[in-house]
Amino acid sequence: MRGFYIGRFQPYHNGHHRMVEEIAADVDELVLGIGSAGDSHSPRNPFTAGERIMMVTKAVKDFDVTTYAVPIEDLDRNSVWVSHVQSMSPAFDVAYSNNPLVIQLFKEAGVEVRQSPMFNRDVLEGTEVRQRMIEDRDWESLVPDAVVDVVYEIGGIERIQRVTASDGSEHVASDDDPNPC
Amino acid sequence: MRGFYIGRFQPYHNGHHRMVEEIAADVDELVLGIGSAGDSHSPRNPFTAGERIMMVTKAVKDFDVTTYAVPIEDLDRNSVWVSHVQSMSPAFDVAYSNNPLVIQLFKEAGVEVRQSPMFNRDVLEGTEVRQRMIEDRDWESLVPDAVVDVVYEIGGIERIQRVTASDGSEHVASDDDPNPC
Amino acid sequence: MRGFYIGRFQPYHNGHHRMVEEIAADVDELVLGIGSAGDSHSPRNPFTAGERIMMVTKAVKDFDVTTYAVPIEDLDRNSVWVSHVQSMSPAFDVAYSNNPLVIQLFKEAGVEVRQSPMFNRDVLEGTEVRQRMIEDRDWESLVPDAVVDVVYEIGGIERIQRVTASDGSEHVASDDDPNPC
Amino acid sequence: MRGFYIGRFQPYHNGHHRMVEEIAADVDELVLGIGSAGDSHSPRNPFTAGERIMMVTKAVKDFDVTTYAVPIEDLDRNSVWVSHVQSMSPAFDVAYSNNPLVIQLFKEAGVEVRQSPMFNRDVLEGTEVRQRMIEDRDWESLVPDAVVDVVYEIGGIERIQRVTASDGSEHVASDDDPNPC
Amino acid sequence: MRGFYIGRFQPYHNGHHRMVEEIAADVDELVLGIGSAGDSHSPRNPFTAGERIMMVTKAVKDFDVTTYAVPIEDLDRNSVWVSHVQSMSPAFDVAYSNNPLVIQLFKEAGVEVRQSPMFNRDVLEGTEVRQRMIEDRDWESLVPDAVVDVVYEIGGIERIQRVTASDGSEHVASDDDPNPC
Amino acid sequence: MRGFYIGRFQPYHNGHHRMVEEIAADVDELVLGIGSAGDSHSPRNPFTAGERIMMVTKAVKDFDVTTYAVPIEDLDRNSVWVSHVQSMSPAFDVAYSNNPLVIQLFKEAGVEVRQSPMFNRDVLEGTEVRQRMIEDRDWESLVPDAVVDVVYEIGGIERIQRVTASDGSEHVASDDDPNPC
Repeated sequence: MRGFYIGRFQPYHNGHHRMVEEIAADVDELVLGIGSAGDSHSPRNPFTAGERIMMVTKAVKDFDVTTYAVPIEDLDRNSVWVSHVQSMSPAFDVAYSNNPLVIQLFKEAGVEVRQSPMFNRDVLEGTEVRQRMIEDRDWESLVPDAVVDVVYEIGGIERIQRVTASDGSEHVASDDDPNPC
Repeated sequence: MRGFYIGRFQPYHNGHHRMVEEIAADVDELVLGIGSAGDSHSPRNPFTAGERIMMVTKAVKDFDVTTYAVPIEDLDRNSVWVSHVQSMSPAFDVAYSNNPLVIQLFKEAGVEVRQSPMFNRDVLEGTEVRQRMIEDRDWESLVPDAVVDVVYEIGGIERIQRVTASDGSEHVASDDDPNPC
Repeated sequence: MRGFYIGRFQPYHNGHHRMVEEIAADVDELVLGIGSAGDSHSPRNPFTAGERIMMVTKAVKDFDVTTYAVPIEDLDRNSVWVSHVQSMSPAFDVAYSNNPLVIQLFKEAGVEVRQSPMFNRDVLEGTEVRQRMIEDRDWESLVPDAVVDVVYEIGGIERIQRVTASDGSEHVASDDDPNPC
Repeated sequence: MRGFYIGRFQPYHNGHHRMVEEIAADVDELVLGIGSAGDSHSPRNPFTAGERIMMVTKAVKDFDVTTYAVPIEDLDRNSVWVSHVQSMSPAFDVAYSNNPLVIQLFKEAGVEVRQSPMFNRDVLEGTEVRQRMIEDRDWESLVPDAVVDVVYEIGGIERIQRVTASDGSEHVASDDDPNPC
Repeated sequence: MRGFYIGRFQPYHNGHHRMVEEIAADVDELVLGIGSAGDSHSPRNPFTAGERIMMVTKAVKDFDVTTYAVPIEDLDRNSVWVSHVQSMSPAFDVAYSNNPLVIQLFKEAGVEVRQSPMFNRDVLEGTEVRQRMIEDRDWESLVPDAVVDVVYEIGGIERIQRVTASDGSEHVASDDDPNPC
Repeated sequence: MRGFYIGRFQPYHNGHHRMVEEIAADVDELVLGIGSAGDSHSPRNPFTAGERIMMVTKAVKDFDVTTYAVPIEDLDRNSVWVSHVQSMSPAFDVAYSNNPLVIQLFKEAGVEVRQSPMFNRDVLEGTEVRQRMIEDRDWESLVPDAVVDVVYEIGGIERIQRVTASDGSEHVASDDDPNPC
């Protein structure tokens, strides 16, 4: 059986890692969908898809399950999102998510969804990890060792600190004016 | 004479219905532009273009005027919006709107615009109808009977309640983190 | 040596003008990148790219430097932004900016960036100019004379006042409901 | 039961009309999907979506079946095409097509498809009608009367003749060179 | 009076130059629209928008007319093309073109178009110039001196020769198979 | 050292396999870029990105090198293609290609490219494999065993045969007319 689990993985942290471990017990193969794959260099999405593929691939090597790390670019249309995911991913039998919108979309498309109370924890941890990166506090203990290596290799701390100093808009908008009118 | 009236119709409600009735007295044919046609499955835009076409078409059947329900997808460029609308719609002689941006764009393009104090009411009603759907309070009395049928046929109440439980972002963004940083 | 300076220029004002004057002393040729080129008719981006090209071109005529006014449309991907700018602009040796995101992106791409404490002033002035336009107070003294002429020629004051009266969303979204849910 | 039938309808002609008549005997309601809705002003796609909506709506008025004319813009991704169609159209139970790609996509998505030998005829007729329009030969006898009216109202003959005189590329490409290299 | 003349300018050559000279006698200001601005690195569109801006700007310096070189990115919708051009360009009173599609689109939008038998020549010359570049034959005599300088500065000859050796598809399509099926 | 090798892999065949084997001797890690990731269900691009990820991942398991299979969606802009690839892929030191356009783009971006006479063979094989699939002749001997399994699991032969029966246009264009005008 093949499972699908989606996250932005900005970055991949211990909360994700525990979930993958839990799901790995259920399935033969696991697809890790890397969401918002086109976003990077913002406070909330600091890392590129390529960087996140490295984090995920290196971190899950220890688990005894075949994994696929698949970037999913946003199409900005909820109505075709499931089809888009299905075309970008190896075929899967069950999706794992606690996000109500994701659950609703998969259900309307007839895809089985499994939830777990545990799935919520990672949400808090993602924000916490990035906040600590920005404030130069200990973030390394919240992520697998392989992720620490990747973040340092790419100069990730300097990057998130710099782009956070900017006006916070997600994209470079040639913007000379950070004050919303 | 052919008139054009645009709304998101999320859902089509009694405020829209009274306006269409008023406009119908002015014109021979009426185009109902269904705005943000590509958006769906969000708290503010719960219904697909196809579902809204059904609502509108069934609800206006009683009026003695030829109507066209035309989905208008967002192009995200105000400067070409009027041309886009004109290419998607049967040719029209006059546009009905109270939205200042819509009025300005049509005026710069040389299209006649008619306003009416009555046009504002629908704005409040759209939010009210969706809020009642979310809270399981009486929303049926605020919309034409045909719309009630469509909403139940498509499982619309369950959908808006579910997607409202999510983090409120309009699109599935592979988002494991509902907290804006 | 050729320099690159990017702004939205909504509108081009005295703060921009002083910066261009300062940069002009450094370089033989100057590219003025007109950011968010596809945006217009909103309170924060009232003017089209074509209107801003006119403002910039006419205003910098006095400076003794060859200038290029180049519209840069948003691609909504930070990771390819520098390549996009480089393909739209004559080749440049140095970029001038105080925006931390712009600086980070150019640095990661190996482009030299120069900063100046002076560069911040224009941010405040952009908002101030638009606010005065909206409130019919003196804005003419904050921009070069050539810009005053362009704004009047295109009916710019009426436009910004009208679109500000709307619900403030940046694009026409066929929106009958200004209240975010 | 609701059926779905898609075509480009450039223009809607007697071949389409006979098929609609045949399908109308099967279904209670019929959705007519107007494909390549964003294309116009080319030899192969001369008419806008709005113009085709008028042709279709006026021509099918005589049939005793509720019809919806729904423009379908191209997304250029076969893998999400069915979802896109489903979100733009009122829900349908069966699709009518003889196009092998359309059949394959609907089948993979689990949608019932019905074919008919008759469906092929319209293909030839579409090319024939446009060729006659270009050469000023009798095309009126190949389309319903309502379509003749629309084509004349919009200056359709002059348009197709002019754009055919151009280099035949489908879009304005700021093209000073009609010779493919 | 302000005129608008559009071309791909791949590259800007003597045929374009003579036309600009002719138009310059008619108008006070001239906008040179650089079409297909997003295309580059292909046999038919070898040069980036930025490179073409340099060619045009340097070459027209001698003429006694204020010029604007404005890149126009393709939107792939004929129906909104005129609005797109108008938003990217300073306002113009008359367009110069011999392209039947361009003429038709401007006419439907109510813009005056002027034609000249001379306008056709440049078409042949564009293909000829690129062919000579590819075959290392004399192309320099077909373009203004300023263009020769730009082409050499950017390594343009090596580029067009290389990309012509490829399979001729206009975009990198990760393509391991040059044979169309 | 990390290498990057791009192909459409429609499907992944023995020619690709031999190249990967050769490259594997050079590098510690290898990124396999799956080009035109958004294309599928056409004669030339029958398989989805997800299906191709499965083929590649299963086939290269035997090699003693860490591999990443990364889908690369087309952006249709040669000028930003390298940046796009770099953001989607783990960082790489050298690219392997014989495609002249790919080589030129990487070289202009300062990326080292390695060529090999062997690289050409796969081009012929891709077309040959698909042709045999269409004609129900032996294609299994031209691809790794793992690919045979994937193709049968997804019903790939039926799919390519069906879509080849269609008019050959790459996308569903709601097309009732297979004859190019």
